[in-house]
Amino acid sequence: MHAYRSHTCADLGKSNVGQTIRLAGWVHRIRDHGGVLFIDLRDHYGVTQLICDPDSPVFAAAERLRSEYCIRIDGAVKARDAGLVNPKLPTGEIEVYIHDLEVLGAAGELPLQVFGDQEYPEETRLRYRYLDLRREAMQRNMTLRSDVVASLRRRMWDRGFREFQTPIITASSPEGARDFLVPSRLHPGRFYALPQAPQQFKQLIMVSGFDKYFQIAPCFRDEDPRADRSPTDFYQLDMEMSFVTQQDVFDTIAPVIAGVFEEFADGKTVDAPEEWSQISYADSALWYGTDKPDLRNPIRMQDVSEHFRGSGFAIFARLLEQEGTQIRAIPAPTGGSRKFCDRMNAFAQKEGLPGMGYIFWREAKKAYIRGNSKLADMLWDLCDGNESRKKIDLLIKEFRPSEESDALQVLAYLDSDRPDQAQPAIVELFGQSIPEAAGPLAKNIGPERTEAIRQQLGLGVGDAAFFLGGKPQTFERVAGKARNVIGEELGLTDENRFAFAWIVDFPMYEADEETGKVDFSHNPFSMPQGGIDALDGDPLRVLGYQYDLACNGYELVSGAIRNHKPEIMFKAFALAGYGEDEVRKRFGGMVNAFQYGAPPHGGCAAGIDRIVMLLAGTSNIREVIMFPMNQRAEDLMMNAPSDPTSDQLMELGLRVIPQE
Amino acid sequence: MHAYRSHTCADLGKSNVGQTIRLAGWVHRIRDHGGVLFIDLRDHYGVTQLICDPDSPVFAAAERLRSEYCIRIDGAVKARDAGLVNPKLPTGEIEVYIHDLEVLGAAGELPLQVFGDQEYPEETRLRYRYLDLRREAMQRNMTLRSDVVASLRRRMWDRGFREFQTPIITASSPEGARDFLVPSRLHPGRFYALPQAPQQFKQLIMVSGFDKYFQIAPCFRDEDPRADRSPTDFYQLDMEMSFVTQQDVFDTIAPVIAGVFEEFADGKTVDAPEEWSQISYADSALWYGTDKPDLRNPIRMQDVSEHFRGSGFAIFARLLEQEGTQIRAIPAPTGGSRKFCDRMNAFAQKEGLPGMGYIFWREAKKAYIRGNSKLADMLWDLCDGNESRKKIDLLIKEFRPSEESDALQVLAYLDSDRPDQAQPAIVELFGQSIPEAAGPLAKNIGPERTEAIRQQLGLGVGDAAFFLGGKPQTFERVAGKARNVIGEELGLTDENRFAFAWIVDFPMYEADEETGKVDFSHNPFSMPQGGIDALDGDPLRVLGYQYDLACNGYELVSGAIRNHKPEIMFKAFALAGYGEDEVRKRFGGMVNAFQYGAPPHGGCAAGIDRIVMLLAGTSNIREVIMFPMNQRAEDLMMNAPSDPTSDQLMELGLRVIPQE
Repeated sequence: MHAYRSHTCADLGKSNVGQTIRLAGWVHRIRDHGGVLFIDLRDHYGVTQLICDPDSPVFAAAERLRSEYCIRIDGAVKARDAGLVNPKLPTGEIEVYIHDLEVLGAAGELPLQVFGDQEYPEETRLRYRYLDLRREAMQRNMTLRSDVVASLRRRMWDRGFREFQTPIITASSPEGARDFLVPSRLHPGRFYALPQAPQQFKQLIMVSGFDKYFQIAPCFRDEDPRADRSPTDFYQLDMEMSFVTQQDVFDTIAPVIAGVFEEFADGKTVDAPEEWSQISYADSALWYGTDKPDLRNPIRMQDVSEHFRGSGFAIFARLLEQEGTQIRAIPAPTGGSRKFCDRMNAFAQKEGLPGMGYIFWREAKKAYIRGNSKLADMLWDLCDGNESRKKIDLLIKEFRPSEESDALQVLAYLDSDRPDQAQPAIVELFGQSIPEAAGPLAKNIGPERTEAIRQQLGLGVGDAAFFLGGKPQTFERVAGKARNVIGEELGLTDENRFAFAWIVDFPMYEADEETGKVDFSHNPFSMPQGGIDALDGDPLRVLGYQYDLACNGYELVSGAIRNHKPEIMFKAFALAGYGEDEVRKRFGGMVNAFQYGAPPHGGCAAGIDRIVMLLAGTSNIREVIMFPMNQRAEDLMMNAPSDPTSDQLMELGLRVIPQE
Repeated sequence: MHAYRSHTCADLGKSNVGQTIRLAGWVHRIRDHGGVLFIDLRDHYGVTQLICDPDSPVFAAAERLRSEYCIRIDGAVKARDAGLVNPKLPTGEIEVYIHDLEVLGAAGELPLQVFGDQEYPEETRLRYRYLDLRREAMQRNMTLRSDVVASLRRRMWDRGFREFQTPIITASSPEGARDFLVPSRLHPGRFYALPQAPQQFKQLIMVSGFDKYFQIAPCFRDEDPRADRSPTDFYQLDMEMSFVTQQDVFDTIAPVIAGVFEEFADGKTVDAPEEWSQISYADSALWYGTDKPDLRNPIRMQDVSEHFRGSGFAIFARLLEQEGTQIRAIPAPTGGSRKFCDRMNAFAQKEGLPGMGYIFWREAKKAYIRGNSKLADMLWDLCDGNESRKKIDLLIKEFRPSEESDALQVLAYLDSDRPDQAQPAIVELFGQSIPEAAGPLAKNIGPERTEAIRQQLGLGVGDAAFFLGGKPQTFERVAGKARNVIGEELGLTDENRFAFAWIVDFPMYEADEETGKVDFSHNPFSMPQGGIDALDGDPLRVLGYQYDLACNGYELVSGAIRNHKPEIMFKAFALAGYGEDEVRKRFGGMVNAFQYGAPPHGGCAAGIDRIVMLLAGTSNIREVIMFPMNQRAEDLMMNAPSDPTSDQLMELGLRVIPQE
């Protein structure tokens, strides 16, 4: 027999009854039932129930076992009594009577229990990661991660991509985030850097004629930590293709991403890639307040400025007199209660805004309604015939054709002395309740504007809308967050769905809020839409062939068609204030390469950690990384970072500046 | 039609004749045949011949094309005339008449030609790597590398292994080679390190209960450069398994390695894994002078000390009076010429040894022969019968029974006055030539010892043997190299074979030559054979469960069964002079983990770069890496390492010490 095991802890079933077998694993749980020991033995594959009774030659040794001892046992497989079969366990039909036992690795007092669901502080979990990882959820997450990466690789291979490794010890690159530096010993005083992404290398691979590249690539950024980002490094599925348009990249990567989500969605629905919409960056900001919208949430914000211009709500009316301002509405279907509206208003205040104005609609006891000529006819009838007035107990107090539109429209003011009867009557007449707007904002702007807003937003009885005003960049982020909270609180967000959309047409440049200085807003290597000619006009109107894939509120993929023409690149950089010398100094490797027959190319990168986070249903990146740093970028288990020896510093030609 | 191409440059064949197609790629070569331009258009997939005659609307533009322009063309596919079909080219049956042309990327004067086989200095190749990589051999090598890595992954998955990524920014580990350090910004003055290998992490993964792990893992060592090693980083197939013996690891990884070699051997034979021998470290040193023998070479060195002890060759005889010395022979079948022997002697001198004594055997005109009683009878007959003497013109000048052996043996001294007739006669009599030893060494030790050496080494006429003496460690390395050179020069090494063997039973410890201090000879984390008890005796006699896989002179795989028991680990380290505190300080993460139920485990790591080098038939690692450093650890293309900015140094709390 094998030195350690004849079977894994998931293998044994009824067909093994009567056999003498050998198992190895960890003591998951021990129970003493009237002098008989029941031991759940666990390995990576499963759990098998062991029994040791006082007749066993190793009973004394078994009594000394504690949780998480690693042991090897020999035993006889027996069928469980019918009443004791555990249908939830693959090995639930048998149990193993131990007749030999060897402790392979003893365990001391446990700082963290593997069995059970007890929660521990993250510091404890990270310090004793090897125990934390034995827990079922972490075994599952790590297995998922590994399977996701393998699936991504397989799908890329199936599409004719080859994986190439790019350098990890390379040159510092002055784009984007902060580099991690690596001092050189052979060249003291000089430094390598860890790549923030293989961006330049993958473009060089295209210039080298490889056509299709991918890599599950480690990326390194010395960033201040966030829950959904590692403070040091992360992995991405990096890909690049030559001779492609933006749509080619979409058509290539969308089935890969969708395929992986479908494979591991675990019952959730996954939007089919052919249905992923392409939303412009501008629309996404307007509709969702972010370029990574959560489209499980059906709420779309709208510009409602016109309804507030010159209205009785002075704050907004005055705001709108400033250039570049806007009033935006967040429709909140089913959010039509004062309690909810007040809570959301408080949320906005907590996020640093003065608050969110709101309107909500309840069943009208009294309401403005707006309709077309058919409604007009009906209302004429109502006003004239006594029969109907009596029946519905409705008084049309005012009626006039609308002047707001070319189409014949009517506005009618309905009132009822008997509110309990008014609503059923309204429903009968119009097929739905007639909403009545509530909230101070509605009062300020009056019923007509309120109703116009309601109709623009497509809301009805029981719904609400929230309003934010100012320059969009001052409120958009909070508006986006509010949209998320509203969607979640109102149950509008479909938790069982992975919702995707491409965000396209990113602006190439942005102006600094204070100085007005123009700089690249995203990737300086993207091809401007319209080519070199587009760079002759207002830089702030130049869009790039640059795109993101948003999924459930995360930026899952980001990419671009690259600028492969040196003359366009120099001009694009010049607009952002970088001279040709500067560009050559910063990106010399790539710029030089482009002078020797560069192909048009483009690609993208998908965040592995995020994909796994989404599939694992967690929002903490450390749940899907085997050995993560803590949020202070420390490895508590391995003790990193640590003090260098003076020999090491000497060899590197470095001195540490004493900290105050 | 697609913006850039309807087909790749490898797609078009006879079935496309008559179609209008679009291609994109690089101008590989342009020839002007009587005013008609023939353009070989190349992409990653192949080459297609384009034709542009003066009737083409884009002829003027085509005339301006130069090598390595990246272009897009539209054209008509036509069949080539029968006489012009190129059967070597997949697209050799057609040519494309250009009617539209667009330059996608122009190319300047080329520092390196893509077309043709011109050699360039490595610095040029690395500086313009994107051009170098377009060349056919590099496209092939990179494709091979990618395919090998994918095949390794697939094979590991098929064996139930999962890939897990381990940290790249981690703690400095004081084992083995020099770490690359990474200064921490959040913790100024403290440093992370890049991992020399995921050794501790993969062991922690086993302690975490994952059972089977692998990773195509980047490893970082700040080493002084060598041709077959990158000065900064390399990749390995790293794997680890729980609950296994050494043989389990062999049985798991051998089919993976053999499978990959078979898949990519390109006609070479691959030793079947079940035939890979297990050679002890001691035998390998004796037989091959190295622990990574090239077994395509059949030569096995032998200890021939006994033949020189007290012999007339005073240098060796005196050497052997010192303890620990040995005379070792390198048999050189077919090397029996003075010219070859002198060349090999010169080789040894160039390698820093005083030289290599040698004996070679030619056809005897005069020889000692040694035989048994049957030979004795024959010789008596020869001496007595006039008939035979006349026939073979042979004189047996001396004859006496041998005293050297219990068996009845005879030594006869043969001579001939007519050497041209002696040999055929000897062959007739004995079925083979009788070898005559030549060389000064043979004279010094006399014919009897010489003949004994010949018989031990199994050599004959036309063969040679080389001799090295002293303490093995003083000559073993050169002996191993000499063995390689001999095998290659004599054509004994089978160039069309991948020959594998496991090298096992590595010693755990070695003593420093000068101080006698005992230290680990290889991996301190290996399990000593015999467990804790083995550590009670002479440390230098302790063997470890540690192993290498040798292939064609390279160490392809290295691994061990690990020491998973803290008490054995502390004792093992104590023998090398490390106290428990020191061990906890250096390897705290792992030692702590072992106290919570560590499973027995072991594994290995296979060098990816080396596997690809072997399969690509190159001995320069830079031929199989996309963007390698040069031998001074510089990236000439990206300009690394480079000077940090003062801001960067400030943030890291570092100061560069000015170099003298």
